[in-house]
Amino acid sequence: MLGLMQDQPLLISALIEFAARHHGDAEIVSRRVEGDIHRSTWRDVAARARKVANALDQMKLAESDRVATLAWNGYRHLELYYGVSGSGRVLHTLNPRLHPDQVVWIANHAEDQVLCFDMTFLPIVQAIHAKCPTIKQYVALCDADKLPADTGIPGLVSYEAWIAPQKDSYVWPKLDENAASSMCYTSGTTGNPKAALYSHRSSILHAYAAALPDVMCLSARDSVLPVVPMFHVNAWGLPYSAAMVGCKLVFPGAGMDGKSVYDLMESEKVTFAAGVPTVWQMLLGHLKPNNLKFSTLTRTVIGGSACPPAMINAFRDDYGVDVLHAWGMTEMSPLGTLCTLKNKHLGMSAEDQMKIRLKQGRAIFGVDMKIVGENGQELPWDGKTYGDLLVKGPWIVKDYFKTEGGHPLVSDANGEGWFPTGDVATIDADGYMQITDRSKDVIKSGGEWISSIDIENIAVAHPAIAMAACIGVKHPKWDERPVVVVVKKPGAEVTRDELIQFYEGKTAKWQIPDDVVFVDAIPLGATGKMLKTKLREQLANYTLPTA
Amino acid sequence: MLGLMQDQPLLISALIEFAARHHGDAEIVSRRVEGDIHRSTWRDVAARARKVANALDQMKLAESDRVATLAWNGYRHLELYYGVSGSGRVLHTLNPRLHPDQVVWIANHAEDQVLCFDMTFLPIVQAIHAKCPTIKQYVALCDADKLPADTGIPGLVSYEAWIAPQKDSYVWPKLDENAASSMCYTSGTTGNPKAALYSHRSSILHAYAAALPDVMCLSARDSVLPVVPMFHVNAWGLPYSAAMVGCKLVFPGAGMDGKSVYDLMESEKVTFAAGVPTVWQMLLGHLKPNNLKFSTLTRTVIGGSACPPAMINAFRDDYGVDVLHAWGMTEMSPLGTLCTLKNKHLGMSAEDQMKIRLKQGRAIFGVDMKIVGENGQELPWDGKTYGDLLVKGPWIVKDYFKTEGGHPLVSDANGEGWFPTGDVATIDADGYMQITDRSKDVIKSGGEWISSIDIENIAVAHPAIAMAACIGVKHPKWDERPVVVVVKKPGAEVTRDELIQFYEGKTAKWQIPDDVVFVDAIPLGATGKMLKTKLREQLANYTLPTA
Repeated sequence: MLGLMQDQPLLISALIEFAARHHGDAEIVSRRVEGDIHRSTWRDVAARARKVANALDQMKLAESDRVATLAWNGYRHLELYYGVSGSGRVLHTLNPRLHPDQVVWIANHAEDQVLCFDMTFLPIVQAIHAKCPTIKQYVALCDADKLPADTGIPGLVSYEAWIAPQKDSYVWPKLDENAASSMCYTSGTTGNPKAALYSHRSSILHAYAAALPDVMCLSARDSVLPVVPMFHVNAWGLPYSAAMVGCKLVFPGAGMDGKSVYDLMESEKVTFAAGVPTVWQMLLGHLKPNNLKFSTLTRTVIGGSACPPAMINAFRDDYGVDVLHAWGMTEMSPLGTLCTLKNKHLGMSAEDQMKIRLKQGRAIFGVDMKIVGENGQELPWDGKTYGDLLVKGPWIVKDYFKTEGGHPLVSDANGEGWFPTGDVATIDADGYMQITDRSKDVIKSGGEWISSIDIENIAVAHPAIAMAACIGVKHPKWDERPVVVVVKKPGAEVTRDELIQFYEGKTAKWQIPDDVVFVDAIPLGATGKMLKTKLREQLANYTLPTA
Repeated sequence: MLGLMQDQPLLISALIEFAARHHGDAEIVSRRVEGDIHRSTWRDVAARARKVANALDQMKLAESDRVATLAWNGYRHLELYYGVSGSGRVLHTLNPRLHPDQVVWIANHAEDQVLCFDMTFLPIVQAIHAKCPTIKQYVALCDADKLPADTGIPGLVSYEAWIAPQKDSYVWPKLDENAASSMCYTSGTTGNPKAALYSHRSSILHAYAAALPDVMCLSARDSVLPVVPMFHVNAWGLPYSAAMVGCKLVFPGAGMDGKSVYDLMESEKVTFAAGVPTVWQMLLGHLKPNNLKFSTLTRTVIGGSACPPAMINAFRDDYGVDVLHAWGMTEMSPLGTLCTLKNKHLGMSAEDQMKIRLKQGRAIFGVDMKIVGENGQELPWDGKTYGDLLVKGPWIVKDYFKTEGGHPLVSDANGEGWFPTGDVATIDADGYMQITDRSKDVIKSGGEWISSIDIENIAVAHPAIAMAACIGVKHPKWDERPVVVVVKKPGAEVTRDELIQFYEGKTAKWQIPDDVVFVDAIPLGATGKMLKTKLREQLANYTLPTA
């Protein structure tokens, strides 16, 4: 017997109409590429999103056709989020930090039909447009009078000229809530980029979860600054959750430096901000020498990579801002865990609380997780045992677009599919997860696992070491043994034996690297991460001294 | 094109397994009917809910069979919430405050198969069991040794004896998320009781919404006391939202008096409580004379009926507790609006903020609302115009169980169904709704509406009036005119003309009642509400003096 509740699909169009109707005058403030501050409201965003929908209809774009963006965080990008997905097309947020060749590959793979871009990225578009045959229309996110005459891009139109003739009324289609709404490519270290294809349902459920008190805690009283880019997993879902709660949104545009972010926080009375550690580092770098304080900011969520304890302490102790660790992935929409305390922790000392805060956090309802060993057996939640981290939930991918790279899910004994995150983690008895390594980087020695990150952290604590990468090298008896590859600081000296000795007492004996390899540089990817795959290639002929 | 996210139905069983897995040791504390305090955890509740599911399987109860409860708020009731719905049966929470004849009618209409009851309600069960042929099993919510020998109820078993032989492992069925999960009857003033039949999907979506910062703001750091009964629209969904966020739950059992509630709040460090105004009145009545304060309570949600301003002020100013108005209905799972401020209100004076707080609040995402006139036309959101309040959303009924009383929804021009709440309300430009009357009580005079509640409030402000009910009486020219029916205070005197004169300057001239009718008593319903239908019957032969 079915329940007798109203059949209402979970649709992204419902978010923007809700925000327009119930929070119509809440502000959307954007620092534009042009440098000025633009003020708009949820009512305006909704009206212009409807114009976007009408423009796409006029182009006869089919349902599920991809509309790509190469854009900063701003009101026009937000209008595209709603106009594109709401009208049944798929919003494809391209990452402008990728190499133009990668952008071409991705745009062709996605079969993008329209590309909307900020003028900052005109050079990229000029470099790629001839190689992107599916793109029928290029739209520059600028006023009509800001469009240069001779871009070389055929049919280029300004966004304002594109939507100006359209009506601001539109009947949003009643889509299947499982219809695709948006997509985001993730560029792994191996193979082709792969796209997560989100649905309206997954986006709405994630938006509810992301706004919860134990997650981003968003209310209509907040002024929210998403520093995390809208081209990076939908800015962690903030454009959706913000409409859901009707808060004020503040967009930084291209201004990610400490001064720009701080000025915007103060002028727009920002209460909550979200971003990666480097942005917060730049912000602290601006605050300290200028002796500044936050007037309204009370909390930040930091994700993307682990946040150094010193930064958490600086925000808390010096500036009264609560810093929360978050963990997620493109394949997870992206939020999986957030590190907030439980009722039982409230009486703890600040020091003990800090030990918890350094972890990646506990699962949000909707997400389940587990750690498994090499044979897929579930491992205990004791905060010590590590295993491959697997997740499942309604906002986690089951497949990649065009099944690029095969089917990712791993089935358990009950036939439930789990997504392998590629991370190695511990989970403690209270459900707090801590990433210890990437699955492909962990060193498997004699049936035990050694975290490459732990080994690297010890090396870089040595005064002579600038950078360190730990890799596993085949060993006839132990299967693999750790070797640490290091770059010395300019002018500094340390010998192999001195560095090996430096590990004594800092880690278990069997985890100490078998050897040290000195190099001039460790290969880095576009986002600054060490490319261990490349490093392994470079050391293909290396053999262990004792093997 | 569909999105490629994991297919995971929204099921109530996922809530209890999540709470057990990620918040296993968070406490469930119950004041039992026996008078003692019982301590349990989410892990225990899950284990015992699985035993309940196994017991129901052993009885060969079919999917969607109804399992009824007549019970206070407590851990066993919570176990039934999860064991019954999780295993695919429908939890039917009977209201013990109804007359036994009504309970019989409802149990037969629902075709209840099992009835689980607290010993407090043994007399009701003794009175009704012979008239409830569908009920195969009676379960007393007590220890085996507390079961009286001679209850006269055939096959009566104690809950503990019932679940003791069952395993605490169970594979929850992968139900359709639209399957019925629970039901609740609402007894209108006319016609038979009608049941809202909730689904797993509606319960989960409501649970997400209810936990949001602008709604009940529930986190794992909370200790939550649901004073609102679990037999009253699932205690506003708190048993579900609490599992979703993994908070501590504190159940008052039968102890609803001021001292019992206060003692439990203090001993269990309650941070949040929810209930109807009468309970909070009793609590204040205990605090004041004893000069007590709250140590941990920071906020309450008050619903069921409007909260007097003096009570909101007392909680805020004297006790530092934030009081939020909520509005909903059995047909709405129940939450529709909550009265929290917006970003734009933060700079307002406390007095201006109070004017907002007195309203029923603004819609939670998922719920939409509108006010309409007599021809169904949508009325403006100006905070003054009143109209019939209509709502829609995925946790609002589309039909009653067995279509009792016909199909309730009203279609708009786009074919969207709206549920008529039976309330008359205003909505202001910011989306804050305020109930002004019941639709059937509003007086329609010369095309304008007069709120019966406004007229009654003025009458009871007169020192000689104890109670007042305003009803509309047919009028040849104006269609209807208001007449106020009053009960004088013992020993007090006031004439018809004095009372009419008392209205001067307190309301618009055309809203002043045409007449006053003095009576000894106004008929009241079981919950203390005035029965205006009955009053109209009593005054069937009354004619207006001027007509």
